Amino acid sequence: MDATPAIERALERALSFATVGDKPPLLCRAVEHAIFAGGARVRPRLCMAVADACGNPYPEAAMAAGTAIEMLHAASLVHDDLPCFDDSDLRRGKPSVHIAYGEPLAVLAGDALIVMAFETLARECAVTPHRLAPLISTIARAVGMPNGIVAGQAWESEPEICVDEYHRTKTASLFVGATAAGAIAADSDPQPWMEVGRQLGAAYQVADDLRDLAASAKEIGKPCGQDASNNQPNMVDELGVPACLAKLQEYVTNAVEAVPDVPGSDGLRNLIHGEVKRMMPRKLIQSAA
Amino acid sequence: MDATPAIERALERALSFATVGDKPPLLCRAVEHAIFAGGARVRPRLCMAVADACGNPYPEAAMAAGTAIEMLHAASLVHDDLPCFDDSDLRRGKPSVHIAYGEPLAVLAGDALIVMAFETLARECAVTPHRLAPLISTIARAVGMPNGIVAGQAWESEPEICVDEYHRTKTASLFVGATAAGAIAADSDPQPWMEVGRQLGAAYQVADDLRDLAASAKEIGKPCGQDASNNQPNMVDELGVPACLAKLQEYVTNAVEAVPDVPGSDGLRNLIHGEVKRMMPRKLIQSAA
Repeated sequence: MDATPAIERALERALSFATVGDKPPLLCRAVEHAIFAGGARVRPRLCMAVADACGNPYPEAAMAAGTAIEMLHAASLVHDDLPCFDDSDLRRGKPSVHIAYGEPLAVLAGDALIVMAFETLARECAVTPHRLAPLISTIARAVGMPNGIVAGQAWESEPEICVDEYHRTKTASLFVGATAAGAIAADSDPQPWMEVGRQLGAAYQVADDLRDLAASAKEIGKPCGQDASNNQPNMVDELGVPACLAKLQEYVTNAVEAVPDVPGSDGLRNLIHGEVKRMMPRKLIQSAA
Repeated sequence: MDATPAIERALERALSFATVGDKPPLLCRAVEHAIFAGGARVRPRLCMAVADACGNPYPEAAMAAGTAIEMLHAASLVHDDLPCFDDSDLRRGKPSVHIAYGEPLAVLAGDALIVMAFETLARECAVTPHRLAPLISTIARAVGMPNGIVAGQAWESEPEICVDEYHRTKTASLFVGATAAGAIAADSDPQPWMEVGRQLGAAYQVADDLRDLAASAKEIGKPCGQDASNNQPNMVDELGVPACLAKLQEYVTNAVEAVPDVPGSDGLRNLIHGEVKRMMPRKLIQSAA
């Protein structure tokens, strides 16, 4: 079952608590713009799929975790697009938040989304309070310091950049957070699921690097070749397209093999294969066919 | 008893979890710079003082709340100093974070501090898990949307600004969060304490506006007259110095009178009087004497 409509409703519900009463209307619109910009909800769907595979005894907790992760992801995109980082005018085919609402509201929308993520977790875990602390710890670790996506982005400001650590933290850490949180929400051991997240995150990073070079701007909804113009490490530059495609396949195989043997593991494996197909730039799929 | 040394240790402890292992060293230094810049720790001391007044049965929870609030305050200062907001080169007499480490790391340090605040709460409330959800909700409300300090800052980007709502959210909301969180950490009803926070926050805002105009840059450690140059609402412009001093006195009296009758209320009233003296610019104290 596709969890996307339920995730959209959960995000709308979270936003409804943030936009009641006296509030600065433009900030509300900036946050709405950031959340509802046509994202594929990859991370919350992964989180929910892991929880489902583990029996999902507390669906509210899994949905809260997925919603929080998506808000944190949206926050990171808003801040990454800022002039001092990627200086990107487009995101998913629409003006990025700082283009639509100005730089101050883009900074604040990102901040508000980070706060909302944890507030949502606390509110939606009311009936499962024993899940709250481990979910916050896991999700915060995936986002913050020393190894979350914020730390990952910060590697770009270091004089010497460790490319592996950069990719692991900048992209894969939130995938690890998503799979681990899905397991925790379902009262399962997160450890074996973290490897699934690591491999999927690595696959996603390679796919993203391939898309940056090989896809059309229309297809990915943002300018292409940004890594090169921003002088950011891109694996395709290092290894070339064929080696990257092989890497991608290897990570996906590893992810599928790392899925623990639980009642719902088949569904999860199918989801992984579907995701990978979706992530690949059409040009490469055609040339590989 | 002065809680400041214990608060400093708690902040150092929180930072120690964020800076282990492989990590981007400059981000760590930027975050350290932001937290340990000589802040007076007004909000965590207030939070601890309320918890103490309420008997403080769970000192770890009160300290966790105070630490989280101070990190969120530090994050807001780092982001407020950015070129797209106040464009302030100095903070507490030292270079602001974006001057010392560049704009990207200043954005990321603020983001990391917000995440760390909630992570710290989850970790330090391990022995008092029933306190976690209400503390997160209360603190998140004080910081995020629709009425926290992030929303307060966002009012500056609105075409029409409601000055009362602007001050209430930009400054007072985190004082309300501090008093309410102190009460919640001590298993007391936060409601009566919120009024104490509201009045103290209003007092602090007036004092800050007076300092912006009347203090020396050396005294407050940042450029003076910033509100005027940034075209931000300043109450002294609206009402004049004498009326502002009267307002300040009124808010302090209200705060002291709002303190509920608990065993430790005298200590708290003393703290309030001491704080107000500390906040006032010397020039005004001398001229009022």
